[in-house]
Amino acid sequence: MEFAAGTRKAQRLELADIMGGAYENQTVSVHGAVHARRDMGGVAFLTLRKRDGVVQCVCCGELDLSQAVEEAAVAVTGTVRRDARAPGGFELAATALKILSRPAAPPPVPVSKRRLDLGLDAELALRPVVLRNLRMRSIFKIQEGICKAFRNYLHQCGFTEIHTPKIVRAGAEGGSNIFRLDYFGKKAFLAQSPQFYKQTMVGVYERVFEAAPVFRAEKHATPRHLNEYTSLDLEMGYIDSFTELMDLETGFLQAAMDLLRREYAADLERLGVTLPDVARIPVLRFDEAKRLAAVRYGRPIRDPWDLEPEEEVNIGRYAWEEWGSEFVFVTHYPSKKRPFYAMDDPEDPRYTFSFDLLFRGMEVTTGGQRVHDYQTQVDKMLARGMHPEEFESYLMIHKHGMPPHGGLGIGLERLTMKLCGLENVRSAALFPRDLHRLEP
Amino acid sequence: MEFAAGTRKAQRLELADIMGGAYENQTVSVHGAVHARRDMGGVAFLTLRKRDGVVQCVCCGELDLSQAVEEAAVAVTGTVRRDARAPGGFELAATALKILSRPAAPPPVPVSKRRLDLGLDAELALRPVVLRNLRMRSIFKIQEGICKAFRNYLHQCGFTEIHTPKIVRAGAEGGSNIFRLDYFGKKAFLAQSPQFYKQTMVGVYERVFEAAPVFRAEKHATPRHLNEYTSLDLEMGYIDSFTELMDLETGFLQAAMDLLRREYAADLERLGVTLPDVARIPVLRFDEAKRLAAVRYGRPIRDPWDLEPEEEVNIGRYAWEEWGSEFVFVTHYPSKKRPFYAMDDPEDPRYTFSFDLLFRGMEVTTGGQRVHDYQTQVDKMLARGMHPEEFESYLMIHKHGMPPHGGLGIGLERLTMKLCGLENVRSAALFPRDLHRLEP
Repeated sequence: MEFAAGTRKAQRLELADIMGGAYENQTVSVHGAVHARRDMGGVAFLTLRKRDGVVQCVCCGELDLSQAVEEAAVAVTGTVRRDARAPGGFELAATALKILSRPAAPPPVPVSKRRLDLGLDAELALRPVVLRNLRMRSIFKIQEGICKAFRNYLHQCGFTEIHTPKIVRAGAEGGSNIFRLDYFGKKAFLAQSPQFYKQTMVGVYERVFEAAPVFRAEKHATPRHLNEYTSLDLEMGYIDSFTELMDLETGFLQAAMDLLRREYAADLERLGVTLPDVARIPVLRFDEAKRLAAVRYGRPIRDPWDLEPEEEVNIGRYAWEEWGSEFVFVTHYPSKKRPFYAMDDPEDPRYTFSFDLLFRGMEVTTGGQRVHDYQTQVDKMLARGMHPEEFESYLMIHKHGMPPHGGLGIGLERLTMKLCGLENVRSAALFPRDLHRLEP
Repeated sequence: MEFAAGTRKAQRLELADIMGGAYENQTVSVHGAVHARRDMGGVAFLTLRKRDGVVQCVCCGELDLSQAVEEAAVAVTGTVRRDARAPGGFELAATALKILSRPAAPPPVPVSKRRLDLGLDAELALRPVVLRNLRMRSIFKIQEGICKAFRNYLHQCGFTEIHTPKIVRAGAEGGSNIFRLDYFGKKAFLAQSPQFYKQTMVGVYERVFEAAPVFRAEKHATPRHLNEYTSLDLEMGYIDSFTELMDLETGFLQAAMDLLRREYAADLERLGVTLPDVARIPVLRFDEAKRLAAVRYGRPIRDPWDLEPEEEVNIGRYAWEEWGSEFVFVTHYPSKKRPFYAMDDPEDPRYTFSFDLLFRGMEVTTGGQRVHDYQTQVDKMLARGMHPEEFESYLMIHKHGMPPHGGLGIGLERLTMKLCGLENVRSAALFPRDLHRLEP
């Protein structure tokens, strides 16, 4: 009889151990992929790619390197030597090399080049290999950091993590941009957002969050739209105003930038990312923001009820010039542009207690206060020609008591994109889904 | 101009602050839902439900309580008094009460009762309100704890979190239990698992994990199946044996039990959960486990290539009787019962380098080593009558080099179910999806 005892994880040497210097002049064995190989006369330099960086291995002529091709998985035994020219300051003088696995064909792209400079279509088609590039890896490490900060921060603020269904009977956001599927003979949809469920869970835990996929069957192909993306959602009860949500999001962004600075410095440096200052974020009303941007940049307002992408860019520019902020909250969006669950401003019901957060000129968050009163919600649905009886299980929460509440949803890929200075949101999704792309 | 500065979250009084004793004899204001109300002559006792527990408010006759009905959202101002009879040891002597929101109708179930004792169908139909019950809340707090431990533990072990698409062109697990949808005129599916993508990402980060929904169009209605569930997936490169994965999972379970004990003690106590001992988990071969259970419990083996639910129960019982373990790993599942990506045991290719983890007689994890060599994988697919050309973007990773690797997937709801001693896996999903259930 054998037992699994949970004790084996400590047995493996990591890159950080070597680069920390504790193994200088000692013989160690490390595994990794052959990231790059340079043959220089009697000596070959293998760059080993490990999960947390690369290590250079110097191989003298006696070693058989015939199978140590790029992207082979190998284990190298050697002596750790301090060398200022090596990445990380240490290299391995190899004495033995073992092939763990070898590729059937050379990589279709030069994985180890600093920049791959492929067109986006080619890059996305070859994603499984392209992502092995160190810059690509760094993008999604930063994405991981954002997600981690989101959960850590909300846990600290007393939020509970929830898991809500993605196959649903009714869409929360309305409109035609919803994927349909057959569910054992019944008509079903893919959730456009966890809206109904996160509100429901406010009645249970007061404060909840979910980081999960959402699905939008939008037919336009733009650099800012994905048909499946990761939404960082939160919902909070007992708010005294929707402005509390903006304050909470600012706190999250502060925590995220701190965490990235602390734990992802190498990735930020590799991508040349300068973290934005989020000490304070300016707040502008929708109508005021439109007016200010129109006046300053001489672009007439065409539709007073909507915000065009160019206007978002100009409002972002205005906030940067005026307050040195790369973020700006725009509040009080028009009621007719917001879903039926948005709370109208009682002083002027043409506008809602809602907001978007713009980052470097693009919307990365939508949020606001929700209707909590049953009759108010039913009336608002009726006024929009909706049928409340179709939303019975959702309206159950209003009927049986809901505190004043609100929430927001952050597009993880958009936030990553803008933070990393990428041109297209597809570059911030591991395996993006768009109008034409269903694989890899 | 206003700014959001991320500073407001500290302004709110939490239950833990009061129950800590720091506010004794001071006047405070707390919000919450009226969980229960008892009128006793000139005095009324309101139990306020807050996100982290309940607090008792004693209201004398002068307060207008006419609107303070069950499930109303209120803010109570009062003096904190020490009282051993009150839950938590402190109560509030109310001096003012403000109604924040009131329900349109009384709750359809007595939310504040210790046990609701509803039938499962009724319970699930009324879930939005039922979940407000404290025992229900505790189930999903424990679920949160498991998920948190999974991420914390894997982050500590150098794993990277990933987000992979749920709309896919090909199913990873094969078979007919897959949901189809129309994707802009193309045939698409909902991912049965992140299998292809997590393997792909091993080529990038060596060690990856994802906690996300998966979808199975299984037509059978059993107490152990859901059509959508949360899968805790991990995949790890450079393993020296698939047994390393079992060791890693044991380490995770140890971390999870520690975290639950530390952070979720109140929820464990409320549900009467005794955490299992996971210091070491016995490991049995599939054929041996079947034989041992058959001999001891006198149940003849009907199919040597499959494990029936009753056999899982008996193997679990055997491990308990023999080694005092509520968990048992069963290894070397038959090749024909495992997917095409499973690695066969070269010493006997009828079996695979794979395992299931049984907990209290039910499978909660499936894992194993995967094929990493390109030709081996292509040959295995051909031998099964599959068409490798349909899996080109997946096979790209094998073609261009993959280290030896393996992984596992844990059913979050099943683990929660067994840990909490629930009879049906539906009770461990907030809003379960099954053959007949698409809402709430």
